[in-house]
Amino acid sequence: MRLALDAMGGDHAPGPIVAGAVKAVQCDPELRVVLVGDQSQVEPLLAGMPDVRDRLEIFHSSQVITMEETPVVALRKKPDNSISRCWQLLAEGKVEAIVSAGNTGAMVAGGLRLRLFLKNVRRPGIAAIMPTLKGPCVLLDVGANISPKPEHLYQYGVMGSIFAKHILQKPQPTIGLMNVGAEEAKGHDLAKETHTLFKASSLGDQFIGNVEGRDINKGVCDVIVTDGYTGNIVLKVCEGVFDFVMKMAGKELLGALQNEKHLGQQALQNLVKRYDYHEHGGAPLLGIDGICIICHGSSGERAIENALGIAAKYARASLNDRIVEELESSPHLSDSDE
Amino acid sequence: MRLALDAMGGDHAPGPIVAGAVKAVQCDPELRVVLVGDQSQVEPLLAGMPDVRDRLEIFHSSQVITMEETPVVALRKKPDNSISRCWQLLAEGKVEAIVSAGNTGAMVAGGLRLRLFLKNVRRPGIAAIMPTLKGPCVLLDVGANISPKPEHLYQYGVMGSIFAKHILQKPQPTIGLMNVGAEEAKGHDLAKETHTLFKASSLGDQFIGNVEGRDINKGVCDVIVTDGYTGNIVLKVCEGVFDFVMKMAGKELLGALQNEKHLGQQALQNLVKRYDYHEHGGAPLLGIDGICIICHGSSGERAIENALGIAAKYARASLNDRIVEELESSPHLSDSDE
Repeated sequence: MRLALDAMGGDHAPGPIVAGAVKAVQCDPELRVVLVGDQSQVEPLLAGMPDVRDRLEIFHSSQVITMEETPVVALRKKPDNSISRCWQLLAEGKVEAIVSAGNTGAMVAGGLRLRLFLKNVRRPGIAAIMPTLKGPCVLLDVGANISPKPEHLYQYGVMGSIFAKHILQKPQPTIGLMNVGAEEAKGHDLAKETHTLFKASSLGDQFIGNVEGRDINKGVCDVIVTDGYTGNIVLKVCEGVFDFVMKMAGKELLGALQNEKHLGQQALQNLVKRYDYHEHGGAPLLGIDGICIICHGSSGERAIENALGIAAKYARASLNDRIVEELESSPHLSDSDE
Repeated sequence: MRLALDAMGGDHAPGPIVAGAVKAVQCDPELRVVLVGDQSQVEPLLAGMPDVRDRLEIFHSSQVITMEETPVVALRKKPDNSISRCWQLLAEGKVEAIVSAGNTGAMVAGGLRLRLFLKNVRRPGIAAIMPTLKGPCVLLDVGANISPKPEHLYQYGVMGSIFAKHILQKPQPTIGLMNVGAEEAKGHDLAKETHTLFKASSLGDQFIGNVEGRDINKGVCDVIVTDGYTGNIVLKVCEGVFDFVMKMAGKELLGALQNEKHLGQQALQNLVKRYDYHEHGGAPLLGIDGICIICHGSSGERAIENALGIAAKYARASLNDRIVEELESSPHLSDSDE
């Protein structure tokens, strides 16, 4: 299993990124990681670790796309950037998966540019795994496709459902449509048309209708479908509220507790470890012919280690074959879409 | 100061709704509340309170729109419903404000139907007050206008700014546009066009550009403008995450604390009291010629009492005169909009 990791991507790159790769190959003896980035920066980070050095390759790339750059412009101006080189390795079949904590827009645009899509997939979508009272659920798209068509959202339902089944172990995943109310007639045109499309489709039995913002964490369904604009905002709102509530709770407890302040703080830290979005292993870009994992810009060693583990897991689960099969038999694809 | 309250609106109506009105008039000697609803249900709830009985009137209405009904259909089928009667009292100038915890869609549609808009206002918007690390901020629209035009969002900036100035006491309110990234070119067409409109407008100095989902609770600006679809989802996601985190924190603390479990629980309850969206006093529908406060369906006595207090406060602040003045001088209104 050979994966490529954007060694230059992320707020703290390359240090903790490379360290995450080292941990990942130490844990998984079948794993090889290609570190894509500036050799002069990456090489020294691998000094003194002979045990796994042979499963860590360096693929030199001289340029980096920063977090602030406009993706499409940056991809054009910096042809030797680490993100494009990752995509190149994937397109050439040299790796099974790519992982980056760099500029999300550039990562997505790099894939769109190559049109390295699975058969019949109109648009890839980023799937975020959300914590709920009943275990994880998948929310997609969270930012790859800002202005989708109903058909794209339908395909997100197909892909999310396969993901939930094979990765989250939900035998018969339920699908909900993010909307402003439970009634069928709610929402804008995109929401209404997508609702109709799902109901009439072969996913009709799995489709539970609209879900509202406050339903996500209740775990009312396994897959929540939405456009990339809304999904991206929802994901970040979750992050923001989580941070806010933990801060407020910390203060409140510090004031209220007397002899057990340390126990209270420890409990909150455990909660952060379990649910903090920064600690998670990244979100897959579904619909790509290959595995592509997009990590939070703030990813540290642990997040990168997790992301590489997840990438390997997805590759082993043959998710993509199942997506292709399912879309093959789906009658809800018009040829006119683009 | 005479206000109308939809006595039949809300999950727990009419009991706690009427009780909230009683509390409100007890606290504010200038307040008179018209309880709009089924006289046979409301009258008994006022038995035995001679001290404020003379400032609580009943306006009989025989029908109720339930939470599940489709607003436009229900308004047509039930002409004597309590929401329409509230609007009627406002339109006839018999009350200065109306308050309801009933069907939000019906409340908004009731206002749109009468077109009881302030001069130059294209569409009213619901303003939600959000807690942040730096005090409250206003998010609008959270559900009145699902598919707005850039100009509507611009007007939300105007109205939200006046609200922040006079109600939240922010001398020079800053305005942000909800979007998927900080860069100007981010987002769908609506976001991009709205960004351009704000930058070129007289609000240009107050406009800080795009804000992301995770910025809301950080308090990066005083007013956040968005479409009603996104705003409604954002508001409910905040509710949902808050509930989720408080549940998880409660469990975690209960397991971790030893002798101070009760102190920990008390601290969390204080937090809920301070931030719980169910406890707040409702959101104003800005842009209406009059004051209209929309409360959470789960509102209890305290929320209704707060909402009536807030309605009285807004009426006294002459918010609407200021909105009309500001829009009068705003050059960014095309005549063609509808």
